[in-house]
Amino acid sequence: MQWNYEQPVAIRFGEGRVSEIGEIAGSLGVGDGVVVADRFFDEGGVTDAMIAGSDGALVASFSDFSPNPDVTEVDACAALLRRVHAGFVVALGGGSAMDVAKAAASICLTDEPIAAYHGTGRTMPTKHLPIIAVPTTAGTGSEVTCVAVLSDRAQGKKAPIVSDGFFPTCAIVDPEMTYSVPPHTTASTGMDVLSQAIEGYWSKGHQPICDACAVHAARLVFEYLPRAVADGRNDHEARSKMCEASVIAGLAFTLPKTTSSHACSFPLTNLLGIPHGEACGLTLDWFTRINADAQGGRVQRFASLLGFADADAMADAIAELKRTIGLRTGLRDLALNDRQIADLVRISRHPNLYNNPVDITDEMLETMYRHLARAD
Amino acid sequence: MQWNYEQPVAIRFGEGRVSEIGEIAGSLGVGDGVVVADRFFDEGGVTDAMIAGSDGALVASFSDFSPNPDVTEVDACAALLRRVHAGFVVALGGGSAMDVAKAAASICLTDEPIAAYHGTGRTMPTKHLPIIAVPTTAGTGSEVTCVAVLSDRAQGKKAPIVSDGFFPTCAIVDPEMTYSVPPHTTASTGMDVLSQAIEGYWSKGHQPICDACAVHAARLVFEYLPRAVADGRNDHEARSKMCEASVIAGLAFTLPKTTSSHACSFPLTNLLGIPHGEACGLTLDWFTRINADAQGGRVQRFASLLGFADADAMADAIAELKRTIGLRTGLRDLALNDRQIADLVRISRHPNLYNNPVDITDEMLETMYRHLARAD
Ligand SMILES: NC(=O)c1ccc[n+]([C@@H]2O[C@H](COP(=O)([O-])OP(=O)(O)OC[C@H]3O[C@@H](n4cnc5c(N)ncnc54)[C@H](O)[C@@H]3O)[C@@H](O)[C@H]2O)c1
Ligand SMILES: NC(=O)c1ccc[n+]([C@@H]2O[C@H](COP(=O)([O-])OP(=O)(O)OC[C@H]3O[C@@H](n4cnc5c(N)ncnc54)[C@H](O)[C@@H]3O)[C@@H](O)[C@H]2O)c1
Ligand SMILES: [Zn+2]
Ligand SMILES: [Zn+2]
Repeated sequence: MQWNYEQPVAIRFGEGRVSEIGEIAGSLGVGDGVVVADRFFDEGGVTDAMIAGSDGALVASFSDFSPNPDVTEVDACAALLRRVHAGFVVALGGGSAMDVAKAAASICLTDEPIAAYHGTGRTMPTKHLPIIAVPTTAGTGSEVTCVAVLSDRAQGKKAPIVSDGFFPTCAIVDPEMTYSVPPHTTASTGMDVLSQAIEGYWSKGHQPICDACAVHAARLVFEYLPRAVADGRNDHEARSKMCEASVIAGLAFTLPKTTSSHACSFPLTNLLGIPHGEACGLTLDWFTRINADAQGGRVQRFASLLGFADADAMADAIAELKRTIGLRTGLRDLALNDRQIADLVRISRHPNLYNNPVDITDEMLETMYRHLARAD
Repeated sequence: MQWNYEQPVAIRFGEGRVSEIGEIAGSLGVGDGVVVADRFFDEGGVTDAMIAGSDGALVASFSDFSPNPDVTEVDACAALLRRVHAGFVVALGGGSAMDVAKAAASICLTDEPIAAYHGTGRTMPTKHLPIIAVPTTAGTGSEVTCVAVLSDRAQGKKAPIVSDGFFPTCAIVDPEMTYSVPPHTTASTGMDVLSQAIEGYWSKGHQPICDACAVHAARLVFEYLPRAVADGRNDHEARSKMCEASVIAGLAFTLPKTTSSHACSFPLTNLLGIPHGEACGLTLDWFTRINADAQGGRVQRFASLLGFADADAMADAIAELKRTIGLRTGLRDLALNDRQIADLVRISRHPNLYNNPVDITDEMLETMYRHLARAD
């Protein structure tokens, strides 16, 4: 058996630790920081307070980006970083904020647009400004990954860019930052955690350290996500455990990469507007049944390590979890036509699909999407 | 909950990957390497072949050290590194070779003896030559830790030095390197793996990423160590799984640190000559019973994640494992006198003892050692 492991991100986990940004910048010897913040924090005044309280370490903020951020938004962020001669970047938000910050922190040291590297196969230069990532959703795990997922709306594509330069120098995982996430976003981002853990485990690129992380993270999601959705403002234990699950699921998938459910999530998000995590979860039980006996029983073993009778029982539990937390289990309300189903099938043929342990044919995808189209 | 995580060592795992040393040195841009090799490889000609096949990347070797290496041996190694103006160090051997190499790779850049930092409380400078660690026992996990355990025979002490500079740049875990380990050393070093996983889990410094690694590693030891001892030359799967357990147990304990069983192992090794892993294992079931209900049931939970009915059943399984693989379960043959027992109790009061989740009194240690003194 052959595998590699590398995890250069220093993690600081704990309630209130967002206050350590200034100290970290000091120990890195960098100043003139820019906060790339989700609009929620910009509008709530958190970003301004952060800059004001930074003893001059932070000099500006950038919030002109949307969920599933666009390449043009990365270029605008990079322009600001160049203009203020930024020395480091703080990413404050969910996957969208972190991915903008990661891409901008590299591309700002070049004179190119990020589109030159998005879906073009060109390798990003690894030189980059140091990044301190502060996730505010228990979701993507982007704070420990070398991936930035960007959209190019003009070209109608969404794709990840992978670069060693995208690893943050430090991840501050402060559960308090997630208390304000509304229930539906908590549910969707939590389902992303579960998908990333499970897909990291069964990916063709699986390896044992990531396996151990995947088991740990998935177990936490089944236990704590319903509580985090039900009372995310007050159930601090559930928030903390979901943050733990999120960062550890990040470790679980960043090397093995995700597979079928993430491949299918891209058209579900782009064509139908379903949020990323909810889109991943929509097909996760289906692919659990398809992959159940792959890899000499590894998926069965994963299910049993989580305390399920078998992979089928785990698939049932995923379906049940979606119902409990109010996520889609079908697409019937969208009344999809044949053309839309054909598009979903076609665009699901994304590179991640080839990491799935079972070969997925167009026929299998069509069967799945037709089933979802009929289901509530 | 508050925790930190950092794991700067790049790991390359797989049969035959020891051949990648030259490539790694090339990508680091370093030359004039010195192999710090266990005598077994020096005498077997492996070290010479490695130098000859390195295209000039390796220029010398050092093997003048013993198991539980002495501070004077580190100084001799550092003198060689200075003399040949070494650019990097390859550590080839068990914990003893790796710990000599790690300490020498730092101290050689100073003009002090390592004793200036051994048990003195002084912080090591972190500047060091790059280290490529190639473990040849499935044991210490030293290839991913920031610890070097050294003895000072003149002073009668054995103690770890901790330094960020001791993290190897790269660990090559090549199971083929362990095929030649004799059964008793396989058993003893394997028991070190189990102790490090379990102690990392229940240490006061526990944290979830290390927890996940501990569960993964301990499960593998119970399953594969008997096979690795029974037929280590031919059972390549068992060797590979024990190497996987070993490096992942290294990740599990390097941040939380070890506890009671490691604290007690130091006098058992120094006074009675019991090999490190066997010495750790001697008290591991005892402390499992003492710690069973600590930390709100975490140890019980660990046992159940491994498939045991409870912590007591796990302790029984540890005792049974020792019998199966031919390790000591008692000290009766040594006919210890009161003075020796008092020394064991006294010297067990090592800093690691204070990481144990239950406070360990001298009375508890004396009860334990008297029990062991009577047991076969
Ligand atoms: N880089 C990676 O490794 C990786 C992995 C998976 C997904 N992704 C990408 O990340 C993006 C999704 O990220 P996400 O799921 O975290 O969602 P997001 O960042 O788009 O945020 C979702 C919504 O939650 C709001 N929000 C965020 N934090 C909040 C808080 N603390 N309180 C209140 N509201 C808050 C945002 O304003 C937004 O409306 C997608 O583009 C996805 O493709 C990246
Ligand atoms: N730095 C750390 O993190 C750490 C952790 C635990 C223990 N330690 C220390 O490591 C040392 C013990 O290391 P160890 O248990 O690996 O034993 P070791 O390195 O002392 O080796 C034990 C014996 O096995 C032989 N040997 C090693 N590899 C062999 C091979 N492939 N084939 C045949 N023979 C081989 C050696 O010649 C030696 O006789 C102790 O000093 C212990 O305190 C360090
Ligand atoms: Zn995702
Ligand atoms: Zn040990």
